[in-house]
Amino acid sequence: MIQVDEALSISAENSTKMPIQKIQVHKALGYILAETVYSPIAMPPFRQSAMDGYAFIHSERHQYDVVDISQAGDHSNIKLNENEAVRIFTGAFVPHNADTVVMQEHVMANEKSILITRMPAQFANVRNKGEQIGPEDVAFEANTLITPAAIGFLACLGITEIEVFKKPKVAILVTGNELVKPGKKLPKGKIYESNSIMLQAALETIGIKKTKVHKVKDNLKATKKALKEILKENDIVLISGGISVGDYDFVKEALLENGVEELFYKINQKPGKPMFFGAKNETLVFALPGNPASSLTNFYVYVYPAIKNRMGFSDTHLPKLVRKLNSGFTNTSGKTLFLKALYDETHVTILDSQSSAMLNTFAIANCLLIVPHDVEMLKKGGLVKLLPID
Amino acid sequence: MIQVDEALSISAENSTKMPIQKIQVHKALGYILAETVYSPIAMPPFRQSAMDGYAFIHSERHQYDVVDISQAGDHSNIKLNENEAVRIFTGAFVPHNADTVVMQEHVMANEKSILITRMPAQFANVRNKGEQIGPEDVAFEANTLITPAAIGFLACLGITEIEVFKKPKVAILVTGNELVKPGKKLPKGKIYESNSIMLQAALETIGIKKTKVHKVKDNLKATKKALKEILKENDIVLISGGISVGDYDFVKEALLENGVEELFYKINQKPGKPMFFGAKNETLVFALPGNPASSLTNFYVYVYPAIKNRMGFSDTHLPKLVRKLNSGFTNTSGKTLFLKALYDETHVTILDSQSSAMLNTFAIANCLLIVPHDVEMLKKGGLVKLLPID
Repeated sequence: MIQVDEALSISAENSTKMPIQKIQVHKALGYILAETVYSPIAMPPFRQSAMDGYAFIHSERHQYDVVDISQAGDHSNIKLNENEAVRIFTGAFVPHNADTVVMQEHVMANEKSILITRMPAQFANVRNKGEQIGPEDVAFEANTLITPAAIGFLACLGITEIEVFKKPKVAILVTGNELVKPGKKLPKGKIYESNSIMLQAALETIGIKKTKVHKVKDNLKATKKALKEILKENDIVLISGGISVGDYDFVKEALLENGVEELFYKINQKPGKPMFFGAKNETLVFALPGNPASSLTNFYVYVYPAIKNRMGFSDTHLPKLVRKLNSGFTNTSGKTLFLKALYDETHVTILDSQSSAMLNTFAIANCLLIVPHDVEMLKKGGLVKLLPID
Repeated sequence: MIQVDEALSISAENSTKMPIQKIQVHKALGYILAETVYSPIAMPPFRQSAMDGYAFIHSERHQYDVVDISQAGDHSNIKLNENEAVRIFTGAFVPHNADTVVMQEHVMANEKSILITRMPAQFANVRNKGEQIGPEDVAFEANTLITPAAIGFLACLGITEIEVFKKPKVAILVTGNELVKPGKKLPKGKIYESNSIMLQAALETIGIKKTKVHKVKDNLKATKKALKEILKENDIVLISGGISVGDYDFVKEALLENGVEELFYKINQKPGKPMFFGAKNETLVFALPGNPASSLTNFYVYVYPAIKNRMGFSDTHLPKLVRKLNSGFTNTSGKTLFLKALYDETHVTILDSQSSAMLNTFAIANCLLIVPHDVEMLKKGGLVKLLPID
């Protein structure tokens, strides 16, 4: 049995980056850039007006003849004389020898001429070509997260395709003869299977969609056979149930016989102790505890950072926040505890029911409060660490 | 022109809750529950062992004959005698008159009998029927957010369908003759259209997927015609471009002629001043500024909370965080400023380039720092409010 910190570093060491793929920019939200992206164009691509107004050659003169019009999207080769101005709109091309734009609120105008009532400084309201970025300049460094703003910036440079780290393909394997699909009648001794749907939802929150669920009977042969295919086709395999010490748990044996190397088994924590972590080539296997709240705890603590690692994130763990504890807490277990809790901007409150079989407390929690195994007393008002899960 | 706070309250008043729909639990992630959900069953549905071990009738006796086995999913009608025990596994049915489970680590066993080496207290390691929740008990109150844990809990109660508030149907209308689709060659005077793809991505981050984009030419007739259909079929309409004071901006006219009531136009803020907000029946219209960074700012400040309101969230605005400012800042504009910034657990740093046409600063920001219109000086080390956008 190992400590939580050891388990986390073993899992991080083995969570290699996924291969690189080309992807269309509009599908790249949430991916990590695997290349440095250079701008193919200057932005703005030409001198642009920053205002609705009139473009002219700056001078002492206040009166100008309006000789042309430049609206967004236009391009004109006009050369202004020093007594001439062009009606212009925000984002529009500024004629070649014009150097200044006066905003329309600062002129008196008729159809043919304007009188500038408040003279702007020379070069005012003109955005220079390449002011934001020049051609061949770096638009984004490798390892940048693709956010809505990043997608917008890439698109405004005309870029349609980038190289990112692939998202891992994840499969869920559910074992357990006691499990019945929700919606069916519940026979005596059975319970509803809820972990697969819960893990699918948890995966969806980090952009892993439509994860396939495989169900097998609680026996070595069926489990071994199912795992053979699943290990071949996936980058991360989550197994729900079947990994405690019971005589009827075949999962570990089936994993080892399929060539999965055991990296650790059992962690000194509560809930979530009976977890197996292994790897076959680059594929990672997390055999999660069967209890729903234990399973979800270990998803957030171990699976979430492993997926982020594989996707190329550098800050792979859930951000750890520090808050003041609203009540004292005693930990005589010698284990690291992950307690369902509610935090706000300054404080954190431990929720009442912490059973590892219970999901309803989890559903109203917004964080897991971490009590290290070697800490026996948390004082009211003391600072504690937590993993936000909202 | 109105202040930011007024604009936010007008938008909140008009953002009515969407109608209710039935939805399958596995598709309900991120929705808000529109009904109180009662448990149809007791959970656990029967007395369950919390350990791998042996079930027996608690007494002074240490030696028991092992007469049966109960693994998860089994159900047996066996009645134990007081010298008898049943081999049992975690989650399995506890035979009717057994009252205690001893964990297997605390017995010496052969195939036929056990010797308890450490006697547990009576009732130890037995989860009572309905210990988590009884039939007809409240599983979730209305207005609960459906998280992965909530989905798991609903599934473990056998619930497959719930009533939630619908997600609003959103459309994006893009106007502007200057706009060219990324991937094509950029003619003189034109720029690439990036706002629609950026807004689609921003919508995706709050669960609004596959938003349809409509493009129209910059003229009244085309805009009016397009809006007629779009207003009929959508709950929220985002319009990009065409709403500044230029002579070529037909959008406002087209909106009013389609029966959209103007609720406000122009906000005393930077960036993002030229925004129109209106409504036709329950459908909301946000005509966003054409500048990319202004557009995205107003998405986070106004559109995001309006969508959350309509989806049934009670905390509709982005959470406002408070951080210490790493440098002084002067605001002589008299406007509310939204500055691209980076925050960590304690501090916030204002990023260098704040131009409203620039998205690359936005792409590396993780928050918008709010400088209220009536605040002229922010001191280094002082506390400031920010909207996280990460």
